[in-house]
Amino acid sequence: MITAGVVGGTGYVGAELLRLLAIHPSVSLGSVTSRGQAGTPIAEVFPNLRNFVSQSFVLPEADSFADCDVVFFATPNGTAMNLAPELLERGLRVIDLSADYRLRDPAVWEQWYGLPHASPELLSQAVYGLPEVNRDAIAEASLIANPGCYATAVQLGFLPLIEAGLVDPAALIADTKSGVSGAGRTPGVPILLCEASENFNAYAASGHRHLPEICQGLEMATGQSIGLTFVPHLVPMIRGIHATLYAELEAGATDVDTIFRNRYEGEHFVDLLPPKSHPQTRSVRGTNRCQISWHRPQGGDRLVVLSVIDNLGKGAAGQAIQNMNILFALDEQMGLDQPALLP
Amino acid sequence: MITAGVVGGTGYVGAELLRLLAIHPSVSLGSVTSRGQAGTPIAEVFPNLRNFVSQSFVLPEADSFADCDVVFFATPNGTAMNLAPELLERGLRVIDLSADYRLRDPAVWEQWYGLPHASPELLSQAVYGLPEVNRDAIAEASLIANPGCYATAVQLGFLPLIEAGLVDPAALIADTKSGVSGAGRTPGVPILLCEASENFNAYAASGHRHLPEICQGLEMATGQSIGLTFVPHLVPMIRGIHATLYAELEAGATDVDTIFRNRYEGEHFVDLLPPKSHPQTRSVRGTNRCQISWHRPQGGDRLVVLSVIDNLGKGAAGQAIQNMNILFALDEQMGLDQPALLP
Amino acid sequence: MITAGVVGGTGYVGAELLRLLAIHPSVSLGSVTSRGQAGTPIAEVFPNLRNFVSQSFVLPEADSFADCDVVFFATPNGTAMNLAPELLERGLRVIDLSADYRLRDPAVWEQWYGLPHASPELLSQAVYGLPEVNRDAIAEASLIANPGCYATAVQLGFLPLIEAGLVDPAALIADTKSGVSGAGRTPGVPILLCEASENFNAYAASGHRHLPEICQGLEMATGQSIGLTFVPHLVPMIRGIHATLYAELEAGATDVDTIFRNRYEGEHFVDLLPPKSHPQTRSVRGTNRCQISWHRPQGGDRLVVLSVIDNLGKGAAGQAIQNMNILFALDEQMGLDQPALLP
Amino acid sequence: MITAGVVGGTGYVGAELLRLLAIHPSVSLGSVTSRGQAGTPIAEVFPNLRNFVSQSFVLPEADSFADCDVVFFATPNGTAMNLAPELLERGLRVIDLSADYRLRDPAVWEQWYGLPHASPELLSQAVYGLPEVNRDAIAEASLIANPGCYATAVQLGFLPLIEAGLVDPAALIADTKSGVSGAGRTPGVPILLCEASENFNAYAASGHRHLPEICQGLEMATGQSIGLTFVPHLVPMIRGIHATLYAELEAGATDVDTIFRNRYEGEHFVDLLPPKSHPQTRSVRGTNRCQISWHRPQGGDRLVVLSVIDNLGKGAAGQAIQNMNILFALDEQMGLDQPALLP
Repeated sequence: MITAGVVGGTGYVGAELLRLLAIHPSVSLGSVTSRGQAGTPIAEVFPNLRNFVSQSFVLPEADSFADCDVVFFATPNGTAMNLAPELLERGLRVIDLSADYRLRDPAVWEQWYGLPHASPELLSQAVYGLPEVNRDAIAEASLIANPGCYATAVQLGFLPLIEAGLVDPAALIADTKSGVSGAGRTPGVPILLCEASENFNAYAASGHRHLPEICQGLEMATGQSIGLTFVPHLVPMIRGIHATLYAELEAGATDVDTIFRNRYEGEHFVDLLPPKSHPQTRSVRGTNRCQISWHRPQGGDRLVVLSVIDNLGKGAAGQAIQNMNILFALDEQMGLDQPALLP
Repeated sequence: MITAGVVGGTGYVGAELLRLLAIHPSVSLGSVTSRGQAGTPIAEVFPNLRNFVSQSFVLPEADSFADCDVVFFATPNGTAMNLAPELLERGLRVIDLSADYRLRDPAVWEQWYGLPHASPELLSQAVYGLPEVNRDAIAEASLIANPGCYATAVQLGFLPLIEAGLVDPAALIADTKSGVSGAGRTPGVPILLCEASENFNAYAASGHRHLPEICQGLEMATGQSIGLTFVPHLVPMIRGIHATLYAELEAGATDVDTIFRNRYEGEHFVDLLPPKSHPQTRSVRGTNRCQISWHRPQGGDRLVVLSVIDNLGKGAAGQAIQNMNILFALDEQMGLDQPALLP
Repeated sequence: MITAGVVGGTGYVGAELLRLLAIHPSVSLGSVTSRGQAGTPIAEVFPNLRNFVSQSFVLPEADSFADCDVVFFATPNGTAMNLAPELLERGLRVIDLSADYRLRDPAVWEQWYGLPHASPELLSQAVYGLPEVNRDAIAEASLIANPGCYATAVQLGFLPLIEAGLVDPAALIADTKSGVSGAGRTPGVPILLCEASENFNAYAASGHRHLPEICQGLEMATGQSIGLTFVPHLVPMIRGIHATLYAELEAGATDVDTIFRNRYEGEHFVDLLPPKSHPQTRSVRGTNRCQISWHRPQGGDRLVVLSVIDNLGKGAAGQAIQNMNILFALDEQMGLDQPALLP
Repeated sequence: MITAGVVGGTGYVGAELLRLLAIHPSVSLGSVTSRGQAGTPIAEVFPNLRNFVSQSFVLPEADSFADCDVVFFATPNGTAMNLAPELLERGLRVIDLSADYRLRDPAVWEQWYGLPHASPELLSQAVYGLPEVNRDAIAEASLIANPGCYATAVQLGFLPLIEAGLVDPAALIADTKSGVSGAGRTPGVPILLCEASENFNAYAASGHRHLPEICQGLEMATGQSIGLTFVPHLVPMIRGIHATLYAELEAGATDVDTIFRNRYEGEHFVDLLPPKSHPQTRSVRGTNRCQISWHRPQGGDRLVVLSVIDNLGKGAAGQAIQNMNILFALDEQMGLDQPALLP
């Protein structure tokens, strides 16, 4: 039995982690912290957890996790980088769902996140937690940087093509769409129901923080230099990411189907749909699954890849549990093997 | 291991049944029928079931269920009453999620459902599958009439009060609200997204089919004559029922809290919230749980009870699984013990 | 040409007022204030007003309205009562869309709103702005207390019945449902899309501020003592109020239809649907209309009245424009005579 | 006063046309046809039109339009091409909102629409009704082919760039998103609330009927050969189209801002937002406006243009009214000059 703690349990990623940890057969839930809600029963904030979680939130202090084997950070960016070093020193494993340890270069991190990194010395030892790329390294890691939601959907869609040299890595486009839960649970006007429902818009079209993460990930995985245009959009729904990916096929490129099938053979959480089909975000809602399909419109040289995940599932908490399973040599699917709720 | 078949697997109740049966540890899924989709892989119609369900739909014939121990009917009203008799003769147990066997009196059934009953001789042996009332009878039944969604939410909210003689049973009001999935998956203008979203309205305010079911249920459970005004409404969301119940407290009535606590002690799927709280439908989404609270505004003689369920969960497929568990002497919570997906 | 100013232009009531004032043929828009957004172009905050409104928000000071004939308050409760007196002294007309001048008794106001009233001397001269009851007084008023949204829908539904002595005024129930815009535009967790969508719940079931307003309104209009149970609910949509009203018919009560038809004859903004029909909130979205129908289930003694409005229209800004039209002897329908956007 | 008839008044485009015609100061509404609803009062089907439209639907026959000056077709594809010839012979003007007369080449039409064209001789005289391109020709036309919704949003976004030779016309990408009303009002499973809400997916990624329309439109307007990848998506909302357009800037291309400003100077319905802003579909809901902005991410050679319209407004009925205004030499903005409803 693994004991797992959570730093930052009141956001949506935290809520999803708590739900998944509560039903994981090999996990006992340890401390769950919240600065603002310390002392409040968790099930009062999230009534879906009544009868499943009996703890109250506690203040975020390293001592709170004395009995833990692993600690998840479901905190805003800039928190984990201050507390993780102490936990690691005490011998705990850390899985950070924020962006603090995703980028290798502290200068790039500071450029995109707007503050100096508090523990840059850990950046090189952090393992980027995309199991379909880094499974072996994850198994040996002490600090895992859990990928961003967009970054997961986009990389899983592009990876086979770039690895196989099928497309021009310098001319990629990712037109991505996310449900509103990706924007978190901290109140703000743009994510009010009356603002975000019955509406659709792009945001951060001139530059989004997942851009350097995706480029770094694809470059490390494929050894090629990546040129990517990345435009995210807000969808009036709660959960789900849909990445529509455009790439230019190299001359003579054939058999995209085989490339995808071979690359993801045995990958339980990457589900390749029949070519020319259209994955739906709701088919993976609440799950750790990525569904992918692809099209070659009018038989031309442009390939369109469609990749869907749940931003809180494979895009955050689900993938974090998958990483934990790998880290503790459990069955990788443990606690994650359920169909989406539909409708 | 129980083998379970499903008649009518392409509607929303069918989809929820398939999801729950797929993850039930003691069930093997048998035949699933669909007149319109026979031959089509189930997972093609419901892509959330890819990797979980490998069968294709078959035609609805009694022979299809030769290897089954139990057959669920998730069909429109008027279907089960024709096929169930043959299945029962073959020794199968039948759990009917339609309305065919809910009413005792065939004349009342015909009045509300508009066609003659095809197997009225079975009405008296059918057990009304509300475990919180009929658990013992359910355990012995061969034919279970699974309650309607509104009927479940309303009865669970009123029952303790009427049993205890706390309120006037002749002056009840149930103002109920349902998500759109309660209207089924057969296309029609009123349930299109562009009609039902950004909208709210009552329907069937002059008389709804769950009215006689609720009155019969409360009368049989409490031995009292019931007078009920029942007005359902359509809520622009997928799942969930919220019943707002109004009753007049008898003179000297006190201690509503104790009455509720005592009545539902040990009932795993009835979750009493603190008095004066407000249950939310999303807290029970995808689950078999009913959450209840109550208010006595301005300390007056009118009591307001708030009762929420998932219309496809405790209001249909969840309760059907609970009934199956009882019928086969399994742990009543088996396959049903999960927190709601939130957000 | 009337010049109209607005105090508090950044909320949803303010936004709707600005839209209606922008297209009103006899109004020129004066100053629009906002403490937080002073200096920002209005059309930057509300891009739907580009090309229609050229002003920027200004600070809320009495001098800002020097050129105005009328000033609307679309502010949180507790603001108008401080600034309105000075504006009235300068000879301006004031239409307050907040609750500050709705209740006659300052003690009751303080009880429900939790702070002492800053200008209680004005309570008796304020005219309650429900034109279907107070049209003549409104025409002569200097200070109009624009009714609350729930209060409008509920009163218009009950009024004819109580005036005619058709129902027991001591045993009324109003089960009301509101779109989320009724909760305003100030960010808070419960009105985030990820909290309020795919969800339904009651709130303030033990006591809501519109309760004393409704009782006072019905008592003043009918001269009868009112007993009302009032339970509001939050609907996952942007605009709309649906009031489901329950009343007990007095012995021998007949001809509800005639009572309604006679009462609202000539009332342009009260649209009586055929009996036994079900009004939809979307049919009045963006308009100043109230649609009403009624049912007498199973021919019994309980009457069910269904009343819908747009909470920002007839429930706030639309009704305020209607009051302004009356106040300045304009055609009562001016600027308000448009069909709802559908779908 | 113009008398306008409508063929096919029960769909969403028809409903929007009726709303706009009802408030147009220079239009009197003539016959409105519906095969299925002939005899039913229009306001019974669309209760938002109560008090605005008194007619009942009639059968679609040429004689029904004897008193009309202009007839709008809001029918499924394949209807107008049969009835329009007779109306034109009688001297009426025809504005077809379906696709029947949009493509010049009958062979291309048949390839994409799957049936032979019934009046191919009219294709060459039909004027493509995009006023920002064809205003003069529209004024002289007898038969106007009103553009498709996607086609409008995409062409308005790309036009200035291609006309000015700023981008490579052979390497365009249009990633488009539409509200569900774009799929019409004929019931079908994919557009049920329970299927389309809380979901996002692409469709027709291998080829959509608006592709040849867009290419033809851009080629005729710019004289250049167009290569376009076009992927549409379904957004869980009622109204709105968001086109995210990607183009490769030619070497030395500068001053995108000036190109856009000059091209649309004086175009009342094309509203250019500040560069680097993000237009929202709700800001144009219910209007005839197109809002456009653009980004040049990381200062690279790829330009991103964001273009939003209401699919039923500038994408259908609004643009049809604009065309009618031009055709009858009315003020082009007449009946269309209103801000969007927000929120």
